[in-house]
Amino acid sequence: MSDDTPRSHGRLAISASLRPRELMTDTPMLRGAWRARIITLLPEAFPGTLGLSLTGKALQEGRWALETIDLRPFGIGKHRNVDDTPAGGGAGMVLRADVVARAFDEAAIGTPIDRARWPVVYLSPRGRRFDQATARRWAGAEGVTLLCGRFEGVDQRVLDHYAVEEVSLGDFVLTGGEIAAQAMIDAAVRLLPGVLGNAASTEEESHSHGLLEHPHYTRPAVWEGREIPAVLTSGDHAAVDRWRRAEAERITRERRPDLWTAYSSRAD
Amino acid sequence: MSDDTPRSHGRLAISASLRPRELMTDTPMLRGAWRARIITLLPEAFPGTLGLSLTGKALQEGRWALETIDLRPFGIGKHRNVDDTPAGGGAGMVLRADVVARAFDEAAIGTPIDRARWPVVYLSPRGRRFDQATARRWAGAEGVTLLCGRFEGVDQRVLDHYAVEEVSLGDFVLTGGEIAAQAMIDAAVRLLPGVLGNAASTEEESHSHGLLEHPHYTRPAVWEGREIPAVLTSGDHAAVDRWRRAEAERITRERRPDLWTAYSSRAD
Repeated sequence: MSDDTPRSHGRLAISASLRPRELMTDTPMLRGAWRARIITLLPEAFPGTLGLSLTGKALQEGRWALETIDLRPFGIGKHRNVDDTPAGGGAGMVLRADVVARAFDEAAIGTPIDRARWPVVYLSPRGRRFDQATARRWAGAEGVTLLCGRFEGVDQRVLDHYAVEEVSLGDFVLTGGEIAAQAMIDAAVRLLPGVLGNAASTEEESHSHGLLEHPHYTRPAVWEGREIPAVLTSGDHAAVDRWRRAEAERITRERRPDLWTAYSSRAD
Repeated sequence: MSDDTPRSHGRLAISASLRPRELMTDTPMLRGAWRARIITLLPEAFPGTLGLSLTGKALQEGRWALETIDLRPFGIGKHRNVDDTPAGGGAGMVLRADVVARAFDEAAIGTPIDRARWPVVYLSPRGRRFDQATARRWAGAEGVTLLCGRFEGVDQRVLDHYAVEEVSLGDFVLTGGEIAAQAMIDAAVRLLPGVLGNAASTEEESHSHGLLEHPHYTRPAVWEGREIPAVLTSGDHAAVDRWRRAEAERITRERRPDLWTAYSSRAD
């Protein structure tokens, strides 16, 4: 556990709001830098892969900040229980509204109330699906608070009370929200100014026209008897563009009829 | 870097296949345990969150194994270059077919050729979308090889030559495939025998009937003036089931018209 604060505050768990949050770097944050606040029972999962490569470099440079809020100290009683059995019966455990509320209060300190300026999110398979538009919206905000679930779910009342947005990584079940949070933060952080070089930002544009990407090729010219398609080495830029568009359309039609339908109806 | 083997093999990079793979635990693997092999330029990203909580416990118990294959030693020349500029021009860099092929050859050692028994996967936004059915299919195989992309893409010829399945985590762009790989492995590993307790496995069933989950509630009975819906504390199990089903249908209709359409047409 990365949280070394005493756990024996008894009923004064609210005083936890006075301790500084666990910043993931010692680097001073740039003024106005984007911030991700993560409420989790596994703070040691962060920064994880976000601390490496481009997102890690940007974190060290203070272009964004990652703060974890350990849910455990907000728990009830000697054992800091955070969950209880579901009302109405059934399997699994449900995170308690009162416990999660204390963590949301902690996370809200110094953040705008306007959810457009600072989304507050619960990661769950019940949510609307995360996509590139969500990543852009979050990157355009001042920061985001993410509650990572474990167990069966979270008491619905705390989600209603705090106007929490439920977002899903996709139609599959994970053991917890931590990896989903890392994926979503990665997608948002790479859109922040200065995180990617110029080259990579065009990839983003190609994604945004609503088609899957065309195939890529590079040296060697012949590999295992397979040649690079001749048009790509012809020097005819217009022909290259036509070929790439046709391939992108073919692949989208084959693999993602849903995207193809949306694209076709727009093109009409 | 977790790879301590010498990088100066010159043209004998193929000899890398003789070195033992980097096992993520010192624990002996259970006979027949499920295996994930990850080809990556960031082997230090693993096991990451997969080394914690339920997936980490199962890893320590040898219920599954995680092996990373560092792509870098298979690169070309003194600098072990793994990528080159795209044929036909454009931004970004493309992973070379010959380099990736050596890593696939390494990953194939001791694995069945039948892709149904051992899927070989490239993680890319161009792929078919990962979902719970994919997680089940992979968990039912003996293991899986995942190639994590970085940069613009991978030379198409190596994907064709090795009958590689392209899978996407969702309609968004990540800086690399490593977090996507962790999400997919998490979804598959939690389906392996003995990884979850009995309680959690029913959650899986509830997901598989094609609706989003109903809301959850737990103690306290009243919180911030909000009560638990009376039916859930009525003791009438049939009424509880009816309420939960109706709520699941309402939420699915509101949030995921696509799932609702699929569910309704099946119910007819």
